[in-house]
Amino acid sequence: MDATNLRIPGPTPLPPAVLRAMQRAMIPHRGSEFRAFFRGLLEQVRQVHRTEGDVIILPGSGSAGWEAAIVNTLSPGDTVLAVVTGDFGVRFARVAERFGLRVERVEVPWGRAATADVVRAALERHPETRAVLYTYNETSTGVANPLAEVGPVVRAHGALLLVDGVSAVAGLPLEMDGWGVDLVLSGSQKAWMCPPGLVIIAAGPRVWESYERASFPRFFWDLGDARRAAAEGNTPTTAPLTLLYALKAACDLIEAEGLEAVYARHRRIGDLTRRRVQEIGYRLFADPAYASDTVTAAVPPEGVAVRDVVARMRQEHGITIADGQGPIKDRIIRIGHMGWVHEPEIERTLAALDAVTNSLAAK
Amino acid sequence: MDATNLRIPGPTPLPPAVLRAMQRAMIPHRGSEFRAFFRGLLEQVRQVHRTEGDVIILPGSGSAGWEAAIVNTLSPGDTVLAVVTGDFGVRFARVAERFGLRVERVEVPWGRAATADVVRAALERHPETRAVLYTYNETSTGVANPLAEVGPVVRAHGALLLVDGVSAVAGLPLEMDGWGVDLVLSGSQKAWMCPPGLVIIAAGPRVWESYERASFPRFFWDLGDARRAAAEGNTPTTAPLTLLYALKAACDLIEAEGLEAVYARHRRIGDLTRRRVQEIGYRLFADPAYASDTVTAAVPPEGVAVRDVVARMRQEHGITIADGQGPIKDRIIRIGHMGWVHEPEIERTLAALDAVTNSLAAK
Repeated sequence: MDATNLRIPGPTPLPPAVLRAMQRAMIPHRGSEFRAFFRGLLEQVRQVHRTEGDVIILPGSGSAGWEAAIVNTLSPGDTVLAVVTGDFGVRFARVAERFGLRVERVEVPWGRAATADVVRAALERHPETRAVLYTYNETSTGVANPLAEVGPVVRAHGALLLVDGVSAVAGLPLEMDGWGVDLVLSGSQKAWMCPPGLVIIAAGPRVWESYERASFPRFFWDLGDARRAAAEGNTPTTAPLTLLYALKAACDLIEAEGLEAVYARHRRIGDLTRRRVQEIGYRLFADPAYASDTVTAAVPPEGVAVRDVVARMRQEHGITIADGQGPIKDRIIRIGHMGWVHEPEIERTLAALDAVTNSLAAK
Repeated sequence: MDATNLRIPGPTPLPPAVLRAMQRAMIPHRGSEFRAFFRGLLEQVRQVHRTEGDVIILPGSGSAGWEAAIVNTLSPGDTVLAVVTGDFGVRFARVAERFGLRVERVEVPWGRAATADVVRAALERHPETRAVLYTYNETSTGVANPLAEVGPVVRAHGALLLVDGVSAVAGLPLEMDGWGVDLVLSGSQKAWMCPPGLVIIAAGPRVWESYERASFPRFFWDLGDARRAAAEGNTPTTAPLTLLYALKAACDLIEAEGLEAVYARHRRIGDLTRRRVQEIGYRLFADPAYASDTVTAAVPPEGVAVRDVVARMRQEHGITIADGQGPIKDRIIRIGHMGWVHEPEIERTLAALDAVTNSLAAK
């Protein structure tokens, strides 16, 4: 099967250079060769975030990033504003609840974006908010929330802005320092074009101020330990070498293409996907003004079942797309188009979707 | 460079089949193909532990296993007995302190083993002990602690036995249920013959009883969540696919060779290494009665500096061995011989050590 036929919103297909990088032999993770390698990698990852802050890379996944963001900046009983625009927003909020935070949820209907006005009003209702949990790209609804506008609003209030960038970073424009974002977490298996297994966290100066006061016990996710180790090119615990090799290869690809060109490609393919799915008869699930360039969620034409579309894409075309999550599981299909994606494979996916949908609609 | 010339006690060289396995394409980690794969893998890993208990595999490292063992079975203020026989025992104890446990340390001189008598006496001094933290194989000293004897002692007391098996599991005999061990944690990069990036935890029924009472907040390391997901062939968070593919390939190798044959090979190579280093003029750092079959720690002959041995092994023979850790950094060399290791490469290492040591001693 063609690996590029995996068109779910993560894990995403791996470029050949990333696969090759994982054939590299093990090296001592406490030696000088590793330190030089890791310093270089951290710098490349930092540049993708457009930040002067620190970058932490640990074994994990996006979920680990939620936990790390919370236990390093907050204390039990602190109030956080959890901005919920879909299933991943719900999960981020639940992690905060598990850790005993006072969680105020701001919910917008799924498919809509959490705008600066929404966040501003919520902060006015909850001035005691210590941190805002915000999802940049809501993978479950195909909405890219307007982080660029929300950043300054949260900064003006004084709360920390902790951002789930899982299906965004390296695919959607990000100006971490420019927008006033304090922390961004992401997972290697999305626009980073790597296998799952790494959590990537960028943290600005206000995170470190909060870190000093945060009272949760912490060890594996202690970002201060990781920061101190990183300053010497080390990791606080055993470095996940193979995945770091993969991430280095992916960063090299991003650099070679150019970050702006990477974003432009995602925009172009996002536009193409949205235009074609609508031509085929689908309705965009996301508010078109905030539709994501990394994942498209779409409601099939009347009489066409999500389950059938997904099954026949797989059976008849060898292409894997996703259904919805949570309460909208059977309402939408989702097509991932982040990371290593170009016109030919997305055209192939859309042609298959056209054939499958027409065939199902004709029944 | 020959990848088998990495002779530190982890990460260890990767067999070709493990490297090949990591070329497999990404699949949906929530699909039926993954579930069938993961169920099979969990069963293979369970057999290596010789347990009827549960196996949990998460992104992480051995250090993550320390945290998971603690937060899932204990509550702040509980007393634990930390059996310290070297640097990794120190670290396990420190993690317990970070989480606010009352840590009673039982220390034996580095190079010696913590016997059943030592543990029994400590438990008599601290009857309130809820859990014993024990290192099966102390990587920093080359001592294999007598877990088989200690298990029944701890079980008789009633405390949980939480075992760091990082440089032991899949290399040294383990009878988790037979010996009365409640939890064993290990990392993929040691005798498992995989890249670093996974923590592997086996947990018996007494862990789940303690889990119900343990009051630490937890999310990513919540073993109950992982257990519920595993029952359906799922992972609680995004599965680190590539490393799981690698672990499957390694388990297949272990099965093909046979677990007893794997242990016999480690014993044979451990014997060979200890005999030869002594012939070359080194003194075993570990009490010979408890010398480890996965790592040998040895004190160079008078006038030969550890630093010089390590440097010249690398420069003149392309072979990487380790120095010591912590207070014995400059006192010992360490040779790793776990996982994918056979006579030819260890003979090559020992021949190089002979040449380097003679040359240094002649100065």
